[in-house]
Amino acid sequence: MEDTVQLEDLRVNGERLRQSLEEMARIGATPGGGVQRLALSDEDKRARDLLVEWLAELELEVTIDAMGNIFGRRAGRGDDLAPVMSGSHLDSQPRGGRFDGVLGVMGMLEVMRTLRDHEVETRRPVAIADWTNEEGSRFSPAMVASGVWAGALDLRWACDRGDVDGKKLGEELERIGYRGDVPCQKFPVHAYYEYHIEQGPRLGREGKLIGVPEGIVCLHWYDVYLKGEANQVGPTPMEGRHDALCAAAEMILAVEALPREMGGNLVATVGEIQNQPNSRNVIPGEVHFTVDIRSWEDDLAGRAWGVLEKEFRAVAERRGCPVEIEETWRVGHSSFDPTLVRRVQEIADALDYPSLKMVSGAGHDASYVNQVCPAAMIFVPSIGGRSHVEVEDTTWEDCEAGANVLLHCVLESAAEG
Amino acid sequence: MEDTVQLEDLRVNGERLRQSLEEMARIGATPGGGVQRLALSDEDKRARDLLVEWLAELELEVTIDAMGNIFGRRAGRGDDLAPVMSGSHLDSQPRGGRFDGVLGVMGMLEVMRTLRDHEVETRRPVAIADWTNEEGSRFSPAMVASGVWAGALDLRWACDRGDVDGKKLGEELERIGYRGDVPCQKFPVHAYYEYHIEQGPRLGREGKLIGVPEGIVCLHWYDVYLKGEANQVGPTPMEGRHDALCAAAEMILAVEALPREMGGNLVATVGEIQNQPNSRNVIPGEVHFTVDIRSWEDDLAGRAWGVLEKEFRAVAERRGCPVEIEETWRVGHSSFDPTLVRRVQEIADALDYPSLKMVSGAGHDASYVNQVCPAAMIFVPSIGGRSHVEVEDTTWEDCEAGANVLLHCVLESAAEG
Repeated sequence: MEDTVQLEDLRVNGERLRQSLEEMARIGATPGGGVQRLALSDEDKRARDLLVEWLAELELEVTIDAMGNIFGRRAGRGDDLAPVMSGSHLDSQPRGGRFDGVLGVMGMLEVMRTLRDHEVETRRPVAIADWTNEEGSRFSPAMVASGVWAGALDLRWACDRGDVDGKKLGEELERIGYRGDVPCQKFPVHAYYEYHIEQGPRLGREGKLIGVPEGIVCLHWYDVYLKGEANQVGPTPMEGRHDALCAAAEMILAVEALPREMGGNLVATVGEIQNQPNSRNVIPGEVHFTVDIRSWEDDLAGRAWGVLEKEFRAVAERRGCPVEIEETWRVGHSSFDPTLVRRVQEIADALDYPSLKMVSGAGHDASYVNQVCPAAMIFVPSIGGRSHVEVEDTTWEDCEAGANVLLHCVLESAAEG
Repeated sequence: MEDTVQLEDLRVNGERLRQSLEEMARIGATPGGGVQRLALSDEDKRARDLLVEWLAELELEVTIDAMGNIFGRRAGRGDDLAPVMSGSHLDSQPRGGRFDGVLGVMGMLEVMRTLRDHEVETRRPVAIADWTNEEGSRFSPAMVASGVWAGALDLRWACDRGDVDGKKLGEELERIGYRGDVPCQKFPVHAYYEYHIEQGPRLGREGKLIGVPEGIVCLHWYDVYLKGEANQVGPTPMEGRHDALCAAAEMILAVEALPREMGGNLVATVGEIQNQPNSRNVIPGEVHFTVDIRSWEDDLAGRAWGVLEKEFRAVAERRGCPVEIEETWRVGHSSFDPTLVRRVQEIADALDYPSLKMVSGAGHDASYVNQVCPAAMIFVPSIGGRSHVEVEDTTWEDCEAGANVLLHCVLESAAEG
């Protein structure tokens, strides 16, 4: 350790963090300034290779498990103690942004590099994690690999998930050389931090720098299938039509109105729609759309769905468009560990970064990891609240600040007995 | 001519007509009992080859023009007189039916065969036509080849129309060997009849056998492009969202309500919608949809669009989702020749087929041909009013009845000086 730097004065190298982020952003870069690095694509492989190269330079002990999760472990003085871990994911949405996920991996890499620069010896080992397929946009559901690691999802089922081309997650892991030989299963972790962009507008609106999430909202996914009666548009009178798209339009507006009707903390969205035969002179005969409902209150989300489902069935009945509804995925809300949450807040205070207690509206791997060990997250502002889009952005100064909070969270947890 | 059959007693061979229709229905047959024979596809080529083979058996003079329109001409006693022509199209919608278009071609083929069987000599020559790409579902717009033939559309522009894979109509004509060496341009025609399924429910509901269209409704096509703001659904509050799909949903319902609001004879439909990025956890950022408005009254359709456009702009303004609108295609209503229309009606009466005066809600090649020469159409019932779908159906008896009406229309017109 350099004699002149006390641990409490330790800071990450913001310029180096920026360079790592920029180098990662070149892998799968899109013309609109974002990245497209779908899980287990060639771009994901290149990003993983680069990460593994960087971990090797730090002489970390790298392991890859059967779901392709990558871990890099730095020894501690008490090397049989459970490690302090932090990480996120390198995969992105289609035409997604340069910060979602990768900031948490590069942030922890920068923490590791800072520890090496200053030859910091920690009591506990410290580990970095890259979780496979967090986004779920290529292989549904999201966060599948941390789910398997936590024991919440089945490995074989997960490997059998298919993309739109029918390729299986397990085959694609094999293809890109990231089906590791270590079993994908939880191991003891002393504390887990996940550093991430906020993906919402609150920090920006309230002029705060560090978001301190108390947990993650619940998440309900539904798939709705409507049958109408396809027909030539011209000779078919308006009376007696069974237009599946008009039925869907009513339902989409009902989803949008739901949070207003229910009150409380709730968002509800239709993100995806398919229309058949989708020809300008044929009355729509089949429509499929998705519903996403989220709330901090599981019960409110459940009641909201009850209201909505009743409304859907009434619309379907009135229009003579039979409806089928699938409950695709339901995860309850997840409260983070109060001690770790308080630590994130206190370290932000100590570093003079204005912070805000909040709730994460997005799912994160921290949600599954939280089932295994104490977990918390650190957020930094998303400019304009934009994410999952190419214009997703966060200032380099904010990236650096968040990494400093992570550094000191890791140091404090790693010093514990 | 067989001595025993007077011209007025002449009837088509219904069994042979059925066989021709069934043989054609095998080309591009779909599992759901329909056909998929998109314009200038391999299936269209096979259907054309079969037609040309059948025309050759009848020793007709076959010509193919530069748009791939196929004509088969049977000599008359006054062979320099303008011919009486009838036909329709062999191409289909995606997963379309077994009668739309092909019934008119097979119906006229059966008339030709009947004339040959009985060695009928007509005063005027008689011709059969198969028009290229009537449907417009592979290459937009519809009825493009009769449009070029009539001089309403430009040949080069038409050949440059592309399909979703970027293939050009002209190249595809070449590829399947149907870019003919005869210029695509109108020639004198004494009278044109087009025999077709109704594609609507009216004949069935009113228990009539023959539909006698007085003309074809006007047709307006619009393309609407909405911009919203894509964002992660979870962390983005409902307030301040700019959800392009919700804006589209309001507009779709406005289109549906339009005929009720305007009164009169009007149908309005959204048949096609594309949503971007179409991911279940991203707020829709871009939506494109189509609007189809039809009426017998051009003026009513124009006023309706005025009302709708104003409403679209108000929705877009209120939701902060900028809208762009293209007027893709506008064709005024087309009134058929009153003398020919009366003839269809009178022949139906003479044959004891209950008939109904009506208007065609669908576009047909007869619409463009009507700009060149007197034209009329003959409809038979679509079971349940279904068309442009695999379950499209018409009884064999009705197919035969319509062909008998066509036979006598052709005979009467061909006897004229």
